[in-house]
Formats: sequence, structure tokens, C-alpha cells
Amino acid sequence: MRRCAGARSVREPAAHLRDLVPYDPKYIPAEVMVSANENPDDVPESLRTDIMRAIRRVALNRYPDPLANGLRDLIAEANGLDRDQVLIGNGGDELLFDTALAWGGPGRVFLNMPPTFSVYENNALLTGTSVVEVPRRANFRVDEEAVVARLSRGDVDFTIVTSPNNPTGDAVSESFVRRVLEASDALVVVDEAYFEFSRKTVRPLLENYENLVILRTFSKAFSLAGVRVGYLLGSERVLSEYKKVRQPYSVDAISQVVASTVYENRSKFVFGIERIVSERERMFERLGQMDGIEAFPSESNFILLRMEGASDAWRELLARGVLVRDFSRTRYLEGCLRVSVGTPQENDRFLQTLADIAASRRAR
Amino acid sequence: MRRCAGARSVREPAAHLRDLVPYDPKYIPAEVMVSANENPDDVPESLRTDIMRAIRRVALNRYPDPLANGLRDLIAEANGLDRDQVLIGNGGDELLFDTALAWGGPGRVFLNMPPTFSVYENNALLTGTSVVEVPRRANFRVDEEAVVARLSRGDVDFTIVTSPNNPTGDAVSESFVRRVLEASDALVVVDEAYFEFSRKTVRPLLENYENLVILRTFSKAFSLAGVRVGYLLGSERVLSEYKKVRQPYSVDAISQVVASTVYENRSKFVFGIERIVSERERMFERLGQMDGIEAFPSESNFILLRMEGASDAWRELLARGVLVRDFSRTRYLEGCLRVSVGTPQENDRFLQTLADIAASRRAR
Repeated sequence: MRRCAGARSVREPAAHLRDLVPYDPKYIPAEVMVSANENPDDVPESLRTDIMRAIRRVALNRYPDPLANGLRDLIAEANGLDRDQVLIGNGGDELLFDTALAWGGPGRVFLNMPPTFSVYENNALLTGTSVVEVPRRANFRVDEEAVVARLSRGDVDFTIVTSPNNPTGDAVSESFVRRVLEASDALVVVDEAYFEFSRKTVRPLLENYENLVILRTFSKAFSLAGVRVGYLLGSERVLSEYKKVRQPYSVDAISQVVASTVYENRSKFVFGIERIVSERERMFERLGQMDGIEAFPSESNFILLRMEGASDAWRELLARGVLVRDFSRTRYLEGCLRVSVGTPQENDRFLQTLADIAASRRAR
Repeated sequence: MRRCAGARSVREPAAHLRDLVPYDPKYIPAEVMVSANENPDDVPESLRTDIMRAIRRVALNRYPDPLANGLRDLIAEANGLDRDQVLIGNGGDELLFDTALAWGGPGRVFLNMPPTFSVYENNALLTGTSVVEVPRRANFRVDEEAVVARLSRGDVDFTIVTSPNNPTGDAVSESFVRRVLEASDALVVVDEAYFEFSRKTVRPLLENYENLVILRTFSKAFSLAGVRVGYLLGSERVLSEYKKVRQPYSVDAISQVVASTVYENRSKFVFGIERIVSERERMFERLGQMDGIEAFPSESNFILLRMEGASDAWRELLARGVLVRDFSRTRYLEGCLRVSVGTPQENDRFLQTLADIAASRRAR
């Protein structure tokens, strides 16, 4: 159906959307999908059976429990918290957006530490929040002194410390997070989406800092990227502000039971996580041996690397069936690609393909 | 875990949240749940088997297709539209919020026609959008002349016409929607969440009005309130603005296959929809015979009624196992309750309980 001429047209949307480009998922099929930091393995087969059984019992015609209290209680108990100190969201993404909606907005300030997860800046833009940047250093580590100094001025309303950081892979120290929390009364979100791979959490700091919230997700270590469940740990007072802005029914009833089943059986993911960590170390070592490739140390399930002609290399990798993430034209990440840790076979294929590309370049 | 004294506190969130009360789901268990306009029947058993089979094939560890293109294509084809004229969301709720985010915002104006779905006004508040109200008339019908006159001033950025309206039940005429569309270049969302029960749609108007988008949902007629899928029909240009503000992965992979399976088999819901419509008429007639109860005509799957001591009646109904929705303290809806059409048995139970309550009042 096409609109005929002379029809009623529509006015422009809000002015700040003018320069926004609709999100392009770059949903490109490939034999080896190592672009999105997913767990290369689906949930274990025995657990899948439990999940299917739990889904079978869900009343599809009834609205979900808005707060996902069953899942909340499981997470609260495992973390030594009360139910009111846990909030579930539609992936970490929704909770990040809600952060900008509640603690940002016109006249308010977000401190960002690029290069980092691009969604943070986008959420600030969507909510009319001002962004102050304290860029990372050349080695992609946080410029700790500059961050603390900037926060101490007192005009920042919220900041996000990503540990491990996406896409650079490095984690921050607990003592740095403590300094950030002491520097002002800004809300500090510590995004621990990848903490299962670094085995570092600032959860103990919750006891002393009302201005701390911790964000986690089921999308990475727990193989549930397709199911969209994330959660916040924080004070009851802060989370009750999130409740004001969140979409009441954003976490559907099936996702709730899937995530609950996985969380109850999370010990079954330990072996897979350990394999990812050891594969990451193997890949890092091998990348370090390749001429013309600079790999950055990672405590996560991916590795950032820099090379000449990165975007050509991205295309060559894809042509040979390996999809990695191209950051070569992203600010602060010029010349960089990011590869997720896949299965050992996938990692071998990536490493061999990249080595071939590097060798054929030297031959030219 | 409780915070110790002297710990770092957190600054207040955005000022406009101060007067907001966190959404209270009023999630009260009852034998007869007729408060949320859900379909009283879950999906048919044969379809449930197909759904389980489809879920079994979903790769849980992979991010979902952000645009849910499989489902989009099904809906586009059924409505004689292109893929780019359909957008899927996490329930209608997400798409309503995105409307306020893209077409509202500070300095922009939303025209509301209360009493109507409370989420519209809440979304305006969350996004800093100004609200202009053209209240409905005493009989809850839209004040058509006033709406068209107000829109003609040209300063309204978007409006939402709800047909049938929640919670009043009435539908508007196509000619009224046409006048609304002609009155200005404001974006006009026609919320057809309940259109399967009124059998009225303004879809043919899409051909001539770029300023029209139609909102629909799987949560009502299609028994999928638990799964959270809604969709917009509109012009490619308008929907591409929605894409800028939407959460990319809000519709999870399981919800996509569940909704696709249901949509492909939507003929299986026809009988249930017809039963709801005939039960609605039966309930309306019966309510009209009860002393002291004013029921409003409905083209939806619920009925609004007004009575003395409505909130006492709400409590008495609940005490006897019947949960309806209490609007008795809601602006414009003083003294009103809303009952969803349930199964014939549930409706009998509601009607008998309400008749008993009314009778015992007369006896006092």
C-alpha cells in the first residue's frame, strides 16, 4: 500500500531526534557469530527440559507479575539482600534507560567515560540529559584522577562505571569505585554485565553507599540473550525511584520463569564460564604473537584488538564466515575490532582466519 | 542487609518524579479475576502444543531479531501493508511510551481525552510533555466538537484516540477520526487494543493520512497478556522515528515465536471473541435490571458501571472471591467499577454476587 498524493502529512517529532539514526542491528548471518558477546553455548540440555516444563505451566492470557517477585526473591537471597533491594528489567538495557529517565533529564548531567557501551550516551540523548565526558587513557584504562576530580565539582547527577568495560575488556578496582562513591552524591551505576568473567563485584559496597546501584544481566554468562532479563541491586529508596519510571509489564511471564529456572541452576554454568575464561587467555596469547595486531587485556568474554585496515579485515573475516564487531569508525576506537570468545572450535577458526589475513597482507 | 549510619547518601532524582507514586499493580489473588481485561481463556490446547514446539527451537543464548521481522511480515501481509509499515513492541505499553518519547518531550503538547487509559498521561509526565485535556462528556462519549476545535489551533503535537476506549468501553466513528486527522498535522494514534471486540478499525485511513498510526496488541483478544507483544501500523516515515527511540531488544525471542504462532492461527480465537461479545451483551442487559447500578454501553471486553458506595462494593466483591477494577477514586470516574468479561461461569458469579450486594443494601 502506498500513500496517494495530497494526503495529510505529519509534523516532525521532537527536535533532538533529527540527527539520530535508527539503530541498525547489523543482523548479518555468519557461520561463526562472535560479534555480540553472547555465550556460545545455549543452556544445557537438561536445563532446557526444566525450562520447557516451567513454560508449560505459565498462564499466557494473564498479565505477568509486574515486579517478577519470584525471581527477585531468588536473586535477593543469593546476594544477602531484601526483595526491595532488587529490581528486574527487560534486559540490562531497560534498566540503563530507566537510569537516564530517573536520574537524567533536561538540566541534569551524566558523566561518561568513553569508549564504553554506546547505549549510555544514546539514552542521555533520548532523555535530554547533558553528557560530560572523561575519556579513557590511550591504553583504554579509566582516567581515575580525572573522573574523581570531575565528580568532586558536584554538578554530575549520575555516572556509569562499567566493569569489565565493553568493548575494552578491562575491570576497575574496588578502591576506585569507592573513591567515585565518596566524590559526590551522584548516583553511581556499576555495570557488572560481564562480572561472571572477571569474578569481581563491588556488591559489598552496597552496605555503605546508598548512591551505588549494581547492574547485572542474564544475557552473557547465563546464555539468555534471547530472553531479555537484567537486574539491579541497590537501596530500596533508589529502586523505588526506578519503579516510578519503569514500564510495569516489561518482563514477560515466560522470561520470568526461564530466568528463575536458570538462576536456580546457575552452578551448571560454571564449567562454561571457566572455559570461556581459559579460551580468552589462549586467544589473547595467540593474538599477541600476530604481527601488526595489538590486543587489549580483557577480564570479560571478548577481546578488543587494533590493527591497520581494520574495516577491510572485518570484511575479509566475514567473507570467510566469521562475524566480529567492527568499531573501526567509532570515536575513540579507530582501527579496532572486537571478538567475542566462542567455542574452542570457533576461536580456532577466528584465529586461523585472522592469521591468514595478516599473512597475506605481509605477502603483498 | 541494612545500611549503617553515616553512609554516603544519594541525591534526588529528576524533580518531576517527586509527586509520582510507584505503580502499584494491585496484584490481588482472587477466584474470579475480572479486573485486567484479559481474555478469560488461555490459548487453545492444540495451539499450546505448537507454541511449545516453536519455543523448543529458539536459541536462548542469541540476541533476538531486534525488529521481529518474521512477525512483522505476517502482520504486514494480513493488513495489506509493507514490512516497513509495521513495528513490533513490548506490549502496546512500550509503543505508547515511545510515542511520548518521539512526539512529546519538553515544549511539546499532548491532547488527552480523559477518562481514558491512565498510561497516556503518565507517559507525558515522564517525558516532560505538556498535557491539554478535552474531557469526555457526562455519558463518557468524546466531546468531538471540542477535540476538533482544540486541534485546529495547531499547537498540539500528538493525540491518542482510544477506540474502544478503556475504561469506558465506547468506540468512535471513522468520520470522527477523519476529522481529527484533518484538523492538524499532529500525530494521531488510534489505540485499537480492543478492536477485535468492536470489529471496527480505521485501517483504511492509513492510505490517506501520514499522521495516523494504529496501535494494537496481542494481550486481549489473543490471550497473550503474559507474553507482551503489541504493534503499530503506520507510515514508514513515522515508524522510522519510533525506531530511533525504541529499545532495540525489547521483544524477546520467545515472545516473537509465540506471537507468530498465535497470529498464524488467529482464526482459532474467533469463537472465543464471539462468546465474549455475546456475554458482554448478556451482562449489560442484566446489569441494567439491577437497581442503583448504571452500566455504560461497551464495544469492548469489559463494562464500566457506576453505583453508590462503589469502593465498598469493590471490597465486598473481593471478599466473595471476585476481583474487579476499582476506579471509584479516579478523577472523572468517581463511583465507577470496571468488570472484564470472563467465562460464562465467572460472569454468572460476578452478576449474582453484585445482585446480592445490591439487595442487601436495599434491605438495610
